[in-house]
Amino acid sequence: MAIEIERKFLVVGEGWRQPDAMHLSQGYLNRDPARTVRVRIAGEEAFLTIKGRSEGLSRAEFEYPLPLADAQALLALCDGPLVEKHRHRVMVDGLLWEVDEFHGANAGLVVAELELQSEDQPFTRPAWLGEEVSDDARYFNSQLASRPFNTWP
Amino acid sequence: MAIEIERKFLVVGEGWRQPDAMHLSQGYLNRDPARTVRVRIAGEEAFLTIKGRSEGLSRAEFEYPLPLADAQALLALCDGPLVEKHRHRVMVDGLLWEVDEFHGANAGLVVAELELQSEDQPFTRPAWLGEEVSDDARYFNSQLASRPFNTWP
Repeated sequence: MAIEIERKFLVVGEGWRQPDAMHLSQGYLNRDPARTVRVRIAGEEAFLTIKGRSEGLSRAEFEYPLPLADAQALLALCDGPLVEKHRHRVMVDGLLWEVDEFHGANAGLVVAELELQSEDQPFTRPAWLGEEVSDDARYFNSQLASRPFNTWP
Repeated sequence: MAIEIERKFLVVGEGWRQPDAMHLSQGYLNRDPARTVRVRIAGEEAFLTIKGRSEGLSRAEFEYPLPLADAQALLALCDGPLVEKHRHRVMVDGLLWEVDEFHGANAGLVVAELELQSEDQPFTRPAWLGEEVSDDARYFNSQLASRPFNTWP
């Protein structure tokens, strides 16, 4: 088990774009925020990830590699449509930002995530960083499967 | 992925009892029969098991070993009370019966399961075999967590 400490932001402009972005396809065997169970295919790799309920910016996380064929079969068992996105990895002053550009029913949404060692860890704000949405449950990927961005009022 | 083909029976008498029965403790990260996610500790081993919806006697099954410490933390994330039981393994004419003696809120319930290679595979019926309950969803372990045997009408 690990504790994931994460901040999440909207972005402005296009300065986060990387030519080698990786395609991610993911679905949920449970979308309950108290026990999220995610199946993800990232390029040729696949993972099963279980997360507990968020407490502040922190959340218990358990991640295990999956055989690719299992992951493909498990995605077919998932609840609701898959979340499809490209992940752009951007280093800024020694910290890695993961900028997710969503597709399908979430097209138009781009979210930047930063994993930290502690909740009060300082970090450089890149020019393309927008509003923080760490506490906004609508932006949980597990919720974007059931209530995609394009359906928001 | 494997396909699990299983028949399930009640038992009569005590002839199924084994002195080396193993204690199992299990909980569910999802109890939905379409995508059951089970965490099980069996003695010093632990497993995460995902099962799809039953079609007849068959069901897709994916099983992965878990570190014991992860399994203990994952059981705390589970939905509803844990299912506790002793598993008695009984060989009968070359086939392995798993007889589960439940405890706690399911005390008094004993269920014998036989895993088969095909749905029409013949098998010897031991003297202690009772009524078949393969199709009765009340006996799913995932349902015994939320609607335990002692609450049945």
